[in-house]
Amino acid sequence: MFFEGAEKKLEIIVHNPHILWDLGDAFWAEVVSHSQATILSQINNDHVKAYLLSESSLFVWKDRLLMLTCGETKLVDAADFLIDKLGRDEIKSLIFQRKNEYRSHLQKSNFEEDVALLKKKVDGRALRFGKLHGHHNLVFHSTKDFAASAEDATSEFLMYDMDKEVSNFLTRVDLTKVEIQKFLKLEEALPGFKIDDYVFSPYGYSLNAIKDSSYYTIHVTPQETSAYVSFETNLSLTDKHGILRHFASVLKPNSFDVMTFNEELPKDLAQGYELIYQGQDKLSTGYSVDFKTYYQISKVIEKPHYYEN
Amino acid sequence: MFFEGAEKKLEIIVHNPHILWDLGDAFWAEVVSHSQATILSQINNDHVKAYLLSESSLFVWKDRLLMLTCGETKLVDAADFLIDKLGRDEIKSLIFQRKNEYRSHLQKSNFEEDVALLKKKVDGRALRFGKLHGHHNLVFHSTKDFAASAEDATSEFLMYDMDKEVSNFLTRVDLTKVEIQKFLKLEEALPGFKIDDYVFSPYGYSLNAIKDSSYYTIHVTPQETSAYVSFETNLSLTDKHGILRHFASVLKPNSFDVMTFNEELPKDLAQGYELIYQGQDKLSTGYSVDFKTYYQISKVIEKPHYYEN
Repeated sequence: MFFEGAEKKLEIIVHNPHILWDLGDAFWAEVVSHSQATILSQINNDHVKAYLLSESSLFVWKDRLLMLTCGETKLVDAADFLIDKLGRDEIKSLIFQRKNEYRSHLQKSNFEEDVALLKKKVDGRALRFGKLHGHHNLVFHSTKDFAASAEDATSEFLMYDMDKEVSNFLTRVDLTKVEIQKFLKLEEALPGFKIDDYVFSPYGYSLNAIKDSSYYTIHVTPQETSAYVSFETNLSLTDKHGILRHFASVLKPNSFDVMTFNEELPKDLAQGYELIYQGQDKLSTGYSVDFKTYYQISKVIEKPHYYEN
Repeated sequence: MFFEGAEKKLEIIVHNPHILWDLGDAFWAEVVSHSQATILSQINNDHVKAYLLSESSLFVWKDRLLMLTCGETKLVDAADFLIDKLGRDEIKSLIFQRKNEYRSHLQKSNFEEDVALLKKKVDGRALRFGKLHGHHNLVFHSTKDFAASAEDATSEFLMYDMDKEVSNFLTRVDLTKVEIQKFLKLEEALPGFKIDDYVFSPYGYSLNAIKDSSYYTIHVTPQETSAYVSFETNLSLTDKHGILRHFASVLKPNSFDVMTFNEELPKDLAQGYELIYQGQDKLSTGYSVDFKTYYQISKVIEKPHYYEN
């Protein structure tokens, strides 16, 4: 059973701290419905509202929102709706991303179509980190007069094709939230967060975690032919560095990408992985973006995947 | 300007040596038209007819045919037409392949759809070498009672994203056939072949070469965002081994795949490349298939690709 775990991502930063924070759950449910997803649950604190979605996550702060959707959702339609509702002049910065998909031909739109739609309302530039024949990350960013602060940092850690033992565990159909949290050693790696998580049927796992204005979010697609785990956070460098190593050692992916905004991580992120791509640029809006792809060197000869029937 | 260089491939082996060889050019033009390509030119000898196509190549021997088409062609429709025209009982073996595409969402069908169409007429199995998130090769093969001889060997060498200097040369708009042949050092690496080649506008290059029943074929898509060169041959191992190293050193790809049928090549195919995937299986029809993916380790930080407009 195929599921496209690779996410699309939207971040909007606004001028007025009330414009996002004063909006109620009904509004966010409508935003999410435009992407063809639904809200499953939510947690809040004084800094951030975190919605767990049928396909990924939505976080709302006073100054910004972050929305991730996977599967066959159409995040660009939610972006289009939000631009109209918030008003173009209220938007300081908009960033829309798409990762390379496992099976892009199943998506309802491609990146170029999404960019064409966004450009009708927001001036911006589109770029690609990584090679089209390998892992890559497609970015559209607004070109408004905006300068992100050096502290405005995000890290994405995208892991492909876990170790067989990990896959076997994560595709057990009777897994509980507690078992998955323990397997990922979350409390050990990231203590003190308020957690909201969901186990999908027959498998699959999503988690939102918040602590003050910090967040992290994990989405697990354990399907054999499209195994994918994403981890994303705004935690500070020192922590994250260790956290990425933590996930690499727990999940043992065949390959992973690291994408950072205003964070520079060391090249030797994890033992046993070789760096096959490194891209870097400073966007006109002040974000220094890094994209790196790592692979394990092959040690064993693998059997092909046989299609059923 | 994007062009999908990654080929689809069809090989059909027949019982009766007359059934293919006696067919005329008009028939092959019709076959090719079903894939939505056209014949540009041809060369022959007593063993093989080689047609150069608007999108890749067609070779016809007394016992078999090989057809490769790239771009947005639909090779499966040509296969479907051929099965009907040749008659199912005349077919000893059918193999249909698709490589990972740069932009699969632009293709007119996907592999599963192609397999469903083929299975209406030919019993067979579908499999995938390589990971869906990386380079892979999708294979459908008939499951008739057929045992390929150990000498029935083919090697495919698929190169992605050439070195900048190579790309700069290959995207010159005034290039001649002779200049490209010299650049690839073909006469030095593969002497004595009868050659038929074509330079596309504004760039792109295809070549068919035959000597007795041996062939090799080269297709060059030099476009910056989708640079791809394929080399395929039925030459013997000792030659090929050196030939693959030759192309790796001339074209300096960022990455390459090697797919062999009844040929086992050494792991250390080319200096400066790391093996990130190796798959192997013996198909029920006697072919021992090997698929390997190599990458250069990244040494320089690259700038992203900026989309125009």
